[in-house]
Amino acid sequence: MITLASDFGSPYPAAMKGVLLRHTDARLVDVSQELPRQDVRAAAFWLRETLPYFPPAVHLVVVDPGVGTDRAALVCRAGEHLLVAPDNGVLRPVARVLARTTGGGSGDASAQPQFFRVDESRFRPTPDGPAPFDRGQSSTFHGRDVFAPVAGVVHDVGVDSLLGEGRLTRPDSVVDLELPTATVESDVAVGEVLVVDDFGNVVTNVPGSFLEGHERVAVGDETVPVGETFASVGPGEALATVGSHGFVELDVNRGRGDDRFGLAPRDAVRLEAA
Amino acid sequence: MITLASDFGSPYPAAMKGVLLRHTDARLVDVSQELPRQDVRAAAFWLRETLPYFPPAVHLVVVDPGVGTDRAALVCRAGEHLLVAPDNGVLRPVARVLARTTGGGSGDASAQPQFFRVDESRFRPTPDGPAPFDRGQSSTFHGRDVFAPVAGVVHDVGVDSLLGEGRLTRPDSVVDLELPTATVESDVAVGEVLVVDDFGNVVTNVPGSFLEGHERVAVGDETVPVGETFASVGPGEALATVGSHGFVELDVNRGRGDDRFGLAPRDAVRLEAA
Amino acid sequence: MITLASDFGSPYPAAMKGVLLRHTDARLVDVSQELPRQDVRAAAFWLRETLPYFPPAVHLVVVDPGVGTDRAALVCRAGEHLLVAPDNGVLRPVARVLARTTGGGSGDASAQPQFFRVDESRFRPTPDGPAPFDRGQSSTFHGRDVFAPVAGVVHDVGVDSLLGEGRLTRPDSVVDLELPTATVESDVAVGEVLVVDDFGNVVTNVPGSFLEGHERVAVGDETVPVGETFASVGPGEALATVGSHGFVELDVNRGRGDDRFGLAPRDAVRLEAA
Repeated sequence: MITLASDFGSPYPAAMKGVLLRHTDARLVDVSQELPRQDVRAAAFWLRETLPYFPPAVHLVVVDPGVGTDRAALVCRAGEHLLVAPDNGVLRPVARVLARTTGGGSGDASAQPQFFRVDESRFRPTPDGPAPFDRGQSSTFHGRDVFAPVAGVVHDVGVDSLLGEGRLTRPDSVVDLELPTATVESDVAVGEVLVVDDFGNVVTNVPGSFLEGHERVAVGDETVPVGETFASVGPGEALATVGSHGFVELDVNRGRGDDRFGLAPRDAVRLEAA
Repeated sequence: MITLASDFGSPYPAAMKGVLLRHTDARLVDVSQELPRQDVRAAAFWLRETLPYFPPAVHLVVVDPGVGTDRAALVCRAGEHLLVAPDNGVLRPVARVLARTTGGGSGDASAQPQFFRVDESRFRPTPDGPAPFDRGQSSTFHGRDVFAPVAGVVHDVGVDSLLGEGRLTRPDSVVDLELPTATVESDVAVGEVLVVDDFGNVVTNVPGSFLEGHERVAVGDETVPVGETFASVGPGEALATVGSHGFVELDVNRGRGDDRFGLAPRDAVRLEAA
Repeated sequence: MITLASDFGSPYPAAMKGVLLRHTDARLVDVSQELPRQDVRAAAFWLRETLPYFPPAVHLVVVDPGVGTDRAALVCRAGEHLLVAPDNGVLRPVARVLARTTGGGSGDASAQPQFFRVDESRFRPTPDGPAPFDRGQSSTFHGRDVFAPVAGVVHDVGVDSLLGEGRLTRPDSVVDLELPTATVESDVAVGEVLVVDDFGNVVTNVPGSFLEGHERVAVGDETVPVGETFASVGPGEALATVGSHGFVELDVNRGRGDDRFGLAPRDAVRLEAA
């Protein structure tokens, strides 16, 4: 199984699927082609929230504002999962979760992901037969020309074989990325907006436990009820709840929390339990 | 085969797919993740228009404005199809069609769908190995935490086995939902807008037969030609036609009917054949 | 393997997938359901850029502003690929590439695609069992009622068998379509915008070789750097680059080129190398 995640929209991912299917008969599963555009941190958040629900798989991730520069292409082994992505930190948060929960005989909390650098010159989109176009590797679409071929080969032959051939090598270092954490002191939490989802729900980085035992919370100047479900308030009314990711979410029942609270990704958020 | 339909957009459905693939090797087919948001009636219409074209399958449907409240999770057996959804009526119109056309030895017009209530406590997202996160069941994402696990299990073991185990039970009642019907008297039809599709075509609930034998129809104050195809009028011109669902549609050739007629879902529509 | 491409958005393609799966067990792969709406030329461009990366497959294409008129339904054999689409030219550019690169024992540059006309009356959405609705063939959704059944049958039985049965015939003529070519004279190129992609990158029809050896290029009144990658300029800055399709693209690093340059599909573009 190979999953695909990108910020490409449509139809670029089709070229990646075509390339993958030239390499392998693996099942392909779309995670998202609509990740927040060129926002590595937001992509890292969504990958951490989705990929760990999958059984062991190869995960192909292309959110790549540095495409064509000298940033490396990476393969990551995290527990029973393999991941392929540019070296910009996008894999770090999810790889930690996958290593911890499926690594070292499943559930060794100290297991760490391993990263490998790709020798891009030794992978090509069309392994068999003639290439469809007389083009070299593009500078702007490594999803098609580098990452998809690598994912297809990694799926079929595995990391160890590629290490033996020198098509993967151990890098000196890889880009790290940690999602920001909120500061919580008794009844006040100071954090920020991680993402806004398609419903307009504002996902903060304040742990959901902050809301425990409280009936209302102040968000900036406004105080809203704490609810367990959207429907705990009337249609069009705002609330704070614990989202499916375990963080405090600022929502409007059957409406958009981002419009109501005037909040966007990376905005600072101050919550005070009331 | 398991089909997926929701109003989630992206990337929440990925977590549902991951959960499904932990339970089953079934083929997954996206029906839509872009159903009109939190609009149970519109979702019911689109399901009725799409699912009956599928061969027998399990259909997972999550349009769930009441998520986290005490609304039940349902499994429905409708002819040769199984459906999984919240108890809010969304399955009713399609289930009637599926029961009638594939039930009772295929084509017993009196066959009725059967509904079963899910014991949510006896299904979990990760049947094997450790859970990826130390979280209980969320209050806001039952698609991932309830409906996907149920669909995966129902696909592999069937309804009867789950009834025997008491993981499904017979409910006292389930929410009903009927799509509204138009009133047609000789040359006047009074109905409403069911949905507006992505092209901007305005789908009414007036039966297409209303247009038979007429060359023009008045829509409110405006009279437009009746055409069999979009191209029966010039680009940018309006027409009334019989849509692919058998209802009267108000369209603009290569344009948007909703903008031209000023109509939105649930608006009243009065048509007078001219 | 059957790929699907349309301008339908959601959820109409689901009905096509259901119909396909009534006919065949083939793997289904979404190319795009978001092709530029009712724009045959833009669709032809994107198909040429994506389908040649696939291994041999049946490609179902429905961009069909003339649906319901007397325009024919076509099957095309192009090298090792089969394509199904309305007779409006949408297949021509990609079929030429597929024939040239996979035809005549793979790589016979003189190989030409062959086109066949479909006898629509001899294909139906539901080959087995009762139809879900008491409807004839619609006039507005041939994707479901004609093209999907044809693609399913073509996949399983092939072209020759259908020719033998007379369900496919040789047409007198088919609609041609060529993507426009730019005029390049020394340091000046005059062309037009083919498409704008989801990132806002403006794809022209000027060959990328035009930029070779130049550091800057004038686009109308403005002169921008020529860069190999988006990141060769600062965030928010404009550049000209060679896109992944080999044409000159007008872009903004981490921004939208169409907004910056004020360009839309079919606009004329004049480039002068500086």
